[in-house]
Amino acid sequence: MLNDIATQAHALYGQGKVASYIPALAQVAPRQFGMAVALVDGSCVATGSADTQFSIQSISKLFTFVLALKLLGDAVWQRVGREPSGAAFNSMVQLETEKGIPRNPFINAGALVITDMLTTRFAHLDTALLGALRLLTDCPELNWDMQTAKSERDTAHRNMAMAYFMKSYGNFVNAPELVLDNYCRQCAIEMSCSQLAQATMFLANGGLDIGRVNAVSATGATGSARAGEQFLSADAARRVNALLLTCGAYDAAGDFAYRIGLPVKTGVGGGIVAIAPGVGTVAVWGPELDAKGNSVLGAFALERLVQLTGWSHD
Amino acid sequence: MLNDIATQAHALYGQGKVASYIPALAQVAPRQFGMAVALVDGSCVATGSADTQFSIQSISKLFTFVLALKLLGDAVWQRVGREPSGAAFNSMVQLETEKGIPRNPFINAGALVITDMLTTRFAHLDTALLGALRLLTDCPELNWDMQTAKSERDTAHRNMAMAYFMKSYGNFVNAPELVLDNYCRQCAIEMSCSQLAQATMFLANGGLDIGRVNAVSATGATGSARAGEQFLSADAARRVNALLLTCGAYDAAGDFAYRIGLPVKTGVGGGIVAIAPGVGTVAVWGPELDAKGNSVLGAFALERLVQLTGWSHD
Amino acid sequence: MLNDIATQAHALYGQGKVASYIPALAQVAPRQFGMAVALVDGSCVATGSADTQFSIQSISKLFTFVLALKLLGDAVWQRVGREPSGAAFNSMVQLETEKGIPRNPFINAGALVITDMLTTRFAHLDTALLGALRLLTDCPELNWDMQTAKSERDTAHRNMAMAYFMKSYGNFVNAPELVLDNYCRQCAIEMSCSQLAQATMFLANGGLDIGRVNAVSATGATGSARAGEQFLSADAARRVNALLLTCGAYDAAGDFAYRIGLPVKTGVGGGIVAIAPGVGTVAVWGPELDAKGNSVLGAFALERLVQLTGWSHD
Amino acid sequence: MLNDIATQAHALYGQGKVASYIPALAQVAPRQFGMAVALVDGSCVATGSADTQFSIQSISKLFTFVLALKLLGDAVWQRVGREPSGAAFNSMVQLETEKGIPRNPFINAGALVITDMLTTRFAHLDTALLGALRLLTDCPELNWDMQTAKSERDTAHRNMAMAYFMKSYGNFVNAPELVLDNYCRQCAIEMSCSQLAQATMFLANGGLDIGRVNAVSATGATGSARAGEQFLSADAARRVNALLLTCGAYDAAGDFAYRIGLPVKTGVGGGIVAIAPGVGTVAVWGPELDAKGNSVLGAFALERLVQLTGWSHD
Repeated sequence: MLNDIATQAHALYGQGKVASYIPALAQVAPRQFGMAVALVDGSCVATGSADTQFSIQSISKLFTFVLALKLLGDAVWQRVGREPSGAAFNSMVQLETEKGIPRNPFINAGALVITDMLTTRFAHLDTALLGALRLLTDCPELNWDMQTAKSERDTAHRNMAMAYFMKSYGNFVNAPELVLDNYCRQCAIEMSCSQLAQATMFLANGGLDIGRVNAVSATGATGSARAGEQFLSADAARRVNALLLTCGAYDAAGDFAYRIGLPVKTGVGGGIVAIAPGVGTVAVWGPELDAKGNSVLGAFALERLVQLTGWSHD
Repeated sequence: MLNDIATQAHALYGQGKVASYIPALAQVAPRQFGMAVALVDGSCVATGSADTQFSIQSISKLFTFVLALKLLGDAVWQRVGREPSGAAFNSMVQLETEKGIPRNPFINAGALVITDMLTTRFAHLDTALLGALRLLTDCPELNWDMQTAKSERDTAHRNMAMAYFMKSYGNFVNAPELVLDNYCRQCAIEMSCSQLAQATMFLANGGLDIGRVNAVSATGATGSARAGEQFLSADAARRVNALLLTCGAYDAAGDFAYRIGLPVKTGVGGGIVAIAPGVGTVAVWGPELDAKGNSVLGAFALERLVQLTGWSHD
Repeated sequence: MLNDIATQAHALYGQGKVASYIPALAQVAPRQFGMAVALVDGSCVATGSADTQFSIQSISKLFTFVLALKLLGDAVWQRVGREPSGAAFNSMVQLETEKGIPRNPFINAGALVITDMLTTRFAHLDTALLGALRLLTDCPELNWDMQTAKSERDTAHRNMAMAYFMKSYGNFVNAPELVLDNYCRQCAIEMSCSQLAQATMFLANGGLDIGRVNAVSATGATGSARAGEQFLSADAARRVNALLLTCGAYDAAGDFAYRIGLPVKTGVGGGIVAIAPGVGTVAVWGPELDAKGNSVLGAFALERLVQLTGWSHD
Repeated sequence: MLNDIATQAHALYGQGKVASYIPALAQVAPRQFGMAVALVDGSCVATGSADTQFSIQSISKLFTFVLALKLLGDAVWQRVGREPSGAAFNSMVQLETEKGIPRNPFINAGALVITDMLTTRFAHLDTALLGALRLLTDCPELNWDMQTAKSERDTAHRNMAMAYFMKSYGNFVNAPELVLDNYCRQCAIEMSCSQLAQATMFLANGGLDIGRVNAVSATGATGSARAGEQFLSADAARRVNALLLTCGAYDAAGDFAYRIGLPVKTGVGGGIVAIAPGVGTVAVWGPELDAKGNSVLGAFALERLVQLTGWSHD
């Protein structure tokens, strides 16, 4: 079935455009597509370039938010809201109206506040975040791309503006320069569809990270150092999914919910992860983006998969 | 269980305020509470004032939207969006930014456009809508309250402003005065929790309206004139639910999704209906509203119910 | 000198566009130009089509404001501000931000509020306003064009929206329909450059309307029924001029002040009146408008006149 | 007459509040008042603390703009507008709407762009600006206060946000950090009323700086090194005045024009300079500010002076 979807997806090549605002991203070859589906029983199927690593970009916002929620709990809501934004992902207008409190953790301003929280907590946030992702994916070689991070940092004027703006409202603790360094490194993390599907499995599985265990057993190993860690409480996992459903696709969140009906997080690198609670996770990748910054082939493939499997929230 | 929830909910009396912007609503006694749960198997349980009729107000937006979608299909999306609004329910700012196309059918501007579509279609929209609701609930006496409708119409200045504003963008066909008459009648429809749970059952049941059939059989009747009508396609029902999840609670949609995780529609009359796809529907009522216009006791009762039953979308 | 300016102005034919949003205005022949200069000593010179009547449109806002100020004094400031708007002349956004109080009497919303005040005061506002203008110009045949008024009224959706919006904030007393009737009639008043220069003379002359007296004496008449009425106090006249300087040209007020430096009021009929305090008044007309809705030839002619005469406020 | 005005002004002590957002400003004793009037004939009268130096703050925006206009001419208008802002002095909303082009050179964003232009031009902008002011005032000891500049720089988060925001639109050349250093030094320049009246004399005098010459002769000196420099062309001076009239008092520009009718520039240090073209200049100072950030006593004194002298633009 995945191969069929891939074949149909290929027909959409040329309908979108590779992200151009960061030089490092603009160089990615547009006609690529990968898809990986991981099920809660530990099985995993994939098609196309499912093992090619790409820049996860805003999908990192999901991981930093989960990390902050895990560490700080409901205290995160004192500095960021949980309402859809109803505006472009990097709008300042809403930030002014709401006095420096970003609408949710998945727009840029919100992710910056989350990164600010984590910057306070970790001397080396990049290492801490990579550590968590390496554990979740069982891939110790996961890393961020230095060139992409630098490219991103050099052009981060609007993000700097938002950080300073929130600082003017008292909603930013650390130096914006430092937080932006961390932020750009997170965005530059490189993962493959298979790794993303694995890394988000705990969200499909009531907070329990069984991904790695099964991954290990799939290779014939008989023991596991970590027999299914409760990475997040079941209740917290459900709430993260609710947030992804309403806020995970920037200003196309409503459209994604309508067409796909699953919690998702998209990135301008062309990746999308989707959570089918109780069933599994899906990661798709195609660098060509639509006008709202979401992967054309990725969104199509997800919609098709949901139609064929009925994995939507009802 | 419902009785326990009701008891706990009573402790919240006094924390909200009855809607005051319409004289007819301001006169409702604040300390009332009702709750009805209808399951897809046809059973129904209730507590408190579940059979007291109240003004459904914005819950009518759900019914007019479903009617428009049923009649016009995807053509509705040419005149209204499906993104969360990120602003107060009656904001003009967003309407100006988006050139007269309301963000979704559940904010006032969007519901006015939907009513405009239906006004074109039906010579007597009030009769047509009541007809559908009477069928869905098997309650031929359902009606709208003339005094509330008048009260509402007399103070509908902002809604008139929005209608004329959309007309200036070419997104309004009929005379605003006429559409507002219809709109205010819809809002003034009176239903009980039991009736609302029954009327929305098709959304929990893949579009199939089995509610009435079972209701009939529950009273011992052996036959039914209408053995389960497919009121909406399964796919359309899923999409309506997705829309309710992202846009059903005005500017608190994200918070509702986070806390409750079910598609809902709220009204300033104090009613809330929630859909648990594949499971059933819940209608709650408590006239005291929070700052965002949603029922305090209703939201609490829903959150509690979800915690106890696990009926969230995962 | 006026003829030289006219010749130069003709070179600009074709650079603007006749107002198209009202059918009646769209039919005006574009290549027309007139200019009249009236001095406080009673002399008057003119060039081109200075005696051709045209639709004064927003220039009427000046007259209604003066009438309201004359009748109600500082009480007008309770319902309208006196700050430049910094936004398009018919923006709703600012009205929402400022809770239904328009920024100044010369944007549409502000003029509607002024007309609402006058509608309360006069059973027949059109007659009252025409009466004042006939007196000021000594032209008893001045009138409004029925067809233009109707054309304008039929397409006044956005103005209706603004009126209802202000009503929702409690800043509108009469029925919007009635006020709009009056408003559209005012806009449809037809005057020539000579008449406009005459009618605004009191603003150049410390509030004293000597225009008519001199006009009469200029024709050799020996007596005058009204030997120079103090139409407005000197102080009020100065303040009206200050308001025209900062708010008289919609969103191009700053540019007009910079280039021309005189209090002006423009209209989409292509007319502009300018006040040179202590010196005289200038009225120009050319139906072709620039992107901000101001007469291309008119603005040029005024700028040229100021350069040649040094009639700016210093 | 000035003494009478001062006496009346003292009655307003306590009606405003000293600027508190910068620690260094918050320490200024509130109950102070000074006023200086310089005439184009070289005479100068003063009352109260007219020789006490205070932080000129936003009045520096006038001087940097004049410097940029002198050096770059009309090229400045490619990067900044000349329309009143219609919003608070440090609003980001308008900047987003207008794609990074500030509305005028006298709101913070506009002054930052001007400072960016000058930063490109001068290796040591502070020295260059002080040089010009020392020449205009004949006071070689004029300087900026290091503590105020530092205090301002430490809290300049919103200005940093605006600088980065404009950089994201390509309307900022230099590093925001560097430009902000210059900007905060300008704001921290300290001048007295007498010095301010002297320094702006060229604006009242058709661009010709005769101030110093006369000041010198007033002290009995017989010679002058600089016999009246044409600091700005007469036309440019007129245009600067027009801009001050429409944009010089932030969001109270319309109100100032209405009440006072003269070109002004205000600062949160409590200073105001006003230009009476052809007549002279007035500088007033009173640290207590109204809600819009303008000096309470200063505005009163100017209004009174204009009433008594009739020095308004007509």
